Amino acid sequence: SRAAEPKKPAEGSALFALSLCSALPFLGAPRLGSSGHVRRQVRGAGGGRAQGWLGPPSLDKAQGCVPAIRTEGGRRRSPVPAAVPFLKIIRKALSEEKRVSTKTSAADLVTETDHVVEALILQELQTRFPSHRFIAEEAAAAGAKCVLTPSPTWIVDPIDGTCNFVHRFPTVAVSIGFAVNQELEFGVIYHCTEERLYTGRRGQGAFCNGQRLRVSGETDLSKALVLTEIGPRRDPATLKLFLSNMERLLHAGAHGVRVIGSSTLALCHLAAGTADAYYQFGLHCWDLAAATVIIREAGGVVMDTSGGPLDLMSCRVVAAGTREMAVLIAQALQTINYGRDDER
Amino acid sequence: SRAAEPKKPAEGSALFALSLCSALPFLGAPRLGSSGHVRRQVRGAGGGRAQGWLGPPSLDKAQGCVPAIRTEGGRRRSPVPAAVPFLKIIRKALSEEKRVSTKTSAADLVTETDHVVEALILQELQTRFPSHRFIAEEAAAAGAKCVLTPSPTWIVDPIDGTCNFVHRFPTVAVSIGFAVNQELEFGVIYHCTEERLYTGRRGQGAFCNGQRLRVSGETDLSKALVLTEIGPRRDPATLKLFLSNMERLLHAGAHGVRVIGSSTLALCHLAAGTADAYYQFGLHCWDLAAATVIIREAGGVVMDTSGGPLDLMSCRVVAAGTREMAVLIAQALQTINYGRDDER
Repeated sequence: SRAAEPKKPAEGSALFALSLCSALPFLGAPRLGSSGHVRRQVRGAGGGRAQGWLGPPSLDKAQGCVPAIRTEGGRRRSPVPAAVPFLKIIRKALSEEKRVSTKTSAADLVTETDHVVEALILQELQTRFPSHRFIAEEAAAAGAKCVLTPSPTWIVDPIDGTCNFVHRFPTVAVSIGFAVNQELEFGVIYHCTEERLYTGRRGQGAFCNGQRLRVSGETDLSKALVLTEIGPRRDPATLKLFLSNMERLLHAGAHGVRVIGSSTLALCHLAAGTADAYYQFGLHCWDLAAATVIIREAGGVVMDTSGGPLDLMSCRVVAAGTREMAVLIAQALQTINYGRDDER
Repeated sequence: SRAAEPKKPAEGSALFALSLCSALPFLGAPRLGSSGHVRRQVRGAGGGRAQGWLGPPSLDKAQGCVPAIRTEGGRRRSPVPAAVPFLKIIRKALSEEKRVSTKTSAADLVTETDHVVEALILQELQTRFPSHRFIAEEAAAAGAKCVLTPSPTWIVDPIDGTCNFVHRFPTVAVSIGFAVNQELEFGVIYHCTEERLYTGRRGQGAFCNGQRLRVSGETDLSKALVLTEIGPRRDPATLKLFLSNMERLLHAGAHGVRVIGSSTLALCHLAAGTADAYYQFGLHCWDLAAATVIIREAGGVVMDTSGGPLDLMSCRVVAAGTREMAVLIAQALQTINYGRDDER
């Protein structure tokens, strides 16, 4: 009932998290409780559970399943239709984009659309949450520090899969994660060309277009489909290690290794149970933040390649549907040292 | 007008090709002229030209763009709605499939659905064309010879991407090609989970859901997105060569290498201009037949990895948007000898 709804929050107070309910009218933000923790109650979330391929995309259906959110004006509305402006920008660019610059290597591309989409997302968030911190890919490339403090922090990748994007290869996503007290609270990932909205909130499950996500229960590496990405560095020593890791997994009998060009969407496959494991060296916190919540809420495991706890800033990750599988992958890998996001 | 329509053909005569107009009510067969060559006239084909990502899937739209075909009863109807039974089988299996057997290695999987779909396709075709020849993946695995004679020959892959299919990784296609006088006449590929129907007819262009396909014009390897597949053999020597080829292309500065788990759909990306090149050792004629027509009709090049003309039975291929790119890729590769499809 309306009487039970949280009041409008005071910025900077312990109630800050309440204001998140109006943070992402365009991407489906979660409503958090006054403690900053995720509320147990899910309003209107799809009760269906699905593993594997979730059927043809249906945003219409998703609109009925994604919880309605409260705007600052107090009205409840579905967050999905308001995603359209971002999607329009990205889709238009997918048929037009030509101008490309590089960051640090030929493989590390950046486009005008990366800048435009990041600026729009940050502008929206900064207006609503002037006290919050932000870690975002293009800002980091321009020299901003990536430090995860206990402050509420938005972690944004405006276009994950930039190389795909440049080539119009339709595997491209927007990823937005949110952390408080250095703990990931929720994640939202939008697969721009397939209209799939992946969401996860700590303690409340993970969904794709309203259907609950559930990881694969596979524990046997010889029955696994494993995803990875090449990473941005292409010097001979790094490439040798990358290929050697792939060789080790194939020698171990993995059914297959896939490289789709988007870390974020590869991790979404893991959450959906359509792949059994993922590992990468050279990804960044903005590739990982949102997906980590989604995978954990789908029952999966996200850890460091050493086998220890995930370090969001360490530029390396193993994720799997089961802890057994994650450990097997971690044990098979040679480390590729990409440094840390928070030490650049 | 109706008066201009070809008459019902006599089986086994030079007019055999006419009967193809009723061959694939379920998958969108082309109408061929009485010479066996493709007719120049395209009825109702979408005139729009597109390169790159083609927007959200729209079979409704495609139904208006795919030429209507004439059944044996003489009625004209859109071929698309009749595809539903096959898609239903494959989609249902995508959420259920568990039972898997292997062909020759852990990576060479086969499922019940492969058998069921192939049997349905062959039954349909054999009833209509008792004199035609067939080359099909599961029949070949069961010992049938793969020989391409001058006779009209259907080349069928019931599920391309079987490993993906087993894991419900949603990159799976049905591929049907047709050759006469050892020349490929048309190809039809259905991306089962994204509802994309790729079609190509010799001399009449290539389409995806009614939108004309056009390859990328890229000639510079250092600006290329390159697709490949690992191939079925996983012995250490073969894996070394596979990884060494990937290393050579990345050293040459390719933007990226993608491995999506379906040769046929990777080749469709090439036709759509969303990738610049494709190469593989260890694929089969049924992975390649339909896609070859589609790529050529989209303006691309399909050749042998030696740089010579394509040999459909040689288990190796380079394809690219431009001849320059295909030659660069071919020159970079070390050969992996998988033998020939017609010598097993």
